[in-house]
Amino acid sequence: MSKISKLIQKLQDRHIPAAVVSDPISINYLTGYYSDPHERLMLLFLFHNQEPLLFLPELDAARAKASLSFPVVGYIDAENPWEKIKAALPQRNYQQLALEFDNLNVTKFKGLESLFSADFTDLTPYLNEMRLLKSADEIQKMLIAGNFADQAVQVGFEHIALDVTETDIIAQIEFAMKKQGVDKMSFDTMVLTGSNAANPHGIPSTNKIENNSLLLFDLGVETLGYVSDMTRTVAVGQPNQFQKDVYHVCLEAQLTALDFIKPGVTAAQVDAAARRVIEKAGFGDYFNHRLGHGIGMSVHEFPSIMAGNDLVIQEGMCFSVEPGIYIPEKVGVRIEDCGYVTKDGFEVFTQTPKELLYF
Amino acid sequence: MSKISKLIQKLQDRHIPAAVVSDPISINYLTGYYSDPHERLMLLFLFHNQEPLLFLPELDAARAKASLSFPVVGYIDAENPWEKIKAALPQRNYQQLALEFDNLNVTKFKGLESLFSADFTDLTPYLNEMRLLKSADEIQKMLIAGNFADQAVQVGFEHIALDVTETDIIAQIEFAMKKQGVDKMSFDTMVLTGSNAANPHGIPSTNKIENNSLLLFDLGVETLGYVSDMTRTVAVGQPNQFQKDVYHVCLEAQLTALDFIKPGVTAAQVDAAARRVIEKAGFGDYFNHRLGHGIGMSVHEFPSIMAGNDLVIQEGMCFSVEPGIYIPEKVGVRIEDCGYVTKDGFEVFTQTPKELLYF
Repeated sequence: MSKISKLIQKLQDRHIPAAVVSDPISINYLTGYYSDPHERLMLLFLFHNQEPLLFLPELDAARAKASLSFPVVGYIDAENPWEKIKAALPQRNYQQLALEFDNLNVTKFKGLESLFSADFTDLTPYLNEMRLLKSADEIQKMLIAGNFADQAVQVGFEHIALDVTETDIIAQIEFAMKKQGVDKMSFDTMVLTGSNAANPHGIPSTNKIENNSLLLFDLGVETLGYVSDMTRTVAVGQPNQFQKDVYHVCLEAQLTALDFIKPGVTAAQVDAAARRVIEKAGFGDYFNHRLGHGIGMSVHEFPSIMAGNDLVIQEGMCFSVEPGIYIPEKVGVRIEDCGYVTKDGFEVFTQTPKELLYF
Repeated sequence: MSKISKLIQKLQDRHIPAAVVSDPISINYLTGYYSDPHERLMLLFLFHNQEPLLFLPELDAARAKASLSFPVVGYIDAENPWEKIKAALPQRNYQQLALEFDNLNVTKFKGLESLFSADFTDLTPYLNEMRLLKSADEIQKMLIAGNFADQAVQVGFEHIALDVTETDIIAQIEFAMKKQGVDKMSFDTMVLTGSNAANPHGIPSTNKIENNSLLLFDLGVETLGYVSDMTRTVAVGQPNQFQKDVYHVCLEAQLTALDFIKPGVTAAQVDAAARRVIEKAGFGDYFNHRLGHGIGMSVHEFPSIMAGNDLVIQEGMCFSVEPGIYIPEKVGVRIEDCGYVTKDGFEVFTQTPKELLYF
């Protein structure tokens, strides 16, 4: 059964006869067609009793028509897109209409409200549910994306030197990836030296790499529609004992969580497994974010691995495990692998070693 | 008067006592503080009778507190952000509350609806109005961003060869920019050879650069919070006469529009000035997008330079002028400069020559 049919089936089970998909990544997931309409309008209409319709900028219509087997309607910039949708969809009364509440902005929501007579309900949970459990084929693509991330971190390692900057190393990493034909990084590559790494959202700059300090790499690539995300923290010169101690606490927390994950435990329990190690070492206050996030076609997707989330872990879920300890002005460490839940455990997508590496 | 005070004044003139800003770029524009909260919640609350409040992930709170002179409240992942906002803002009844309809997703909109008793109105037009006319300082930053784009295109030109691919050239361009400390490209760099350029949203790939054909570069950088965006199409070897003719029609259209722009004309008239040239040459059907878009802190911002937009052009507006002619399988040309409206004309941010260059 196609993914579209599966989603329509799910909606029918809840007596929802129609849906509008607005996130380009969701549209890609469902149809295999991807484009980014930027501020223009792209909407995929799904119905229980008629074929789907993709509405998008005329600029992209030819490519969409070539790759899809259902109707595609394009609009040009000078046209009113809502009027054009109205003409293309004469039947616009539905008991319920599901929309992507997490993606759709209020302007588009109001546009749909003006066109459709329906109770609006959230489509996001149904799509999340479908995207949550990855197929063998999806996991294969994520392993490839993970392998590129390992290569990218390796390039970073090779360019560590005291006379280069954070952004110099980033330039080398991204150049090497592009030369390999990797479309794009999955987010802005982070290389953070010394106390800059002590900010979990630190911004790379033209800081020279500090000696006798830790250096953090956080990066990922996008390939075949799937993404990777990993973090490694390494030693440059001889960090002090405290920095090394913090590193080892973080590593123990990560390994403990990786070892703990298996079908049947909850997301909150996985978070707690890592957090307990860090709290026991006295650094609990410095681990100020969730343990992980789902990953797949997007870098951050459902579910959140955090306190309060009682979601039961199942085979096929993919998420990050990334404890961090950030002590302002002193030290910042994060160690992250993404992986997939197996029948009885968890396998990671990235293989770069995690014992403290010295450069 | 600070930008926040100016916005509050604008709202008061319309009897709107409070607003919620959700777009990180709008928050940066108003406060000078930027961070990307990804899927987490970041909201700037503005009131006519009390100081602003920035609500954001605890991860970013320290940096925000250091740069802002009004209250900052952080939440951690395991907390319910809406409950935390409720506690921080005891007064939540307003006649009207302005929200960024173009930015806010329905989930966040519903969260705000559950907290505030108010009529919700769109904040977007007020922010657009403020951002529309750029100050001398903003124009200075955009000239710097434009100069980097000129340099980036130059790097691209230097790497044109028949044994390299579109993505090879992109890698060289982005590497050169990163080495200069330019934070990031303002969008995915496009290098499109031959018939790939005949798709206005073509996707660069590992196509080798075609001989006796046209090659299109579309790129921009982000620097100092402002962006550039430019397109050049050049000849590789000896394109045929038809391709050269199409190039010259596109160039004439662009120069005609640049020459036409001055305070007092409308956006629709600017679009028509370029479009008329292309229509007269018989290629009207192949110019299937608006002539341009506003630019500033975002690559695509208000206003649209297109048919139907009767907005009157004023000094200080910044936008792109980018006619294109795309004849499937045959030829694709686009020529784009962004610039700013002066007292009596239009000055561009990018200086790369536009006579057909041969490589």
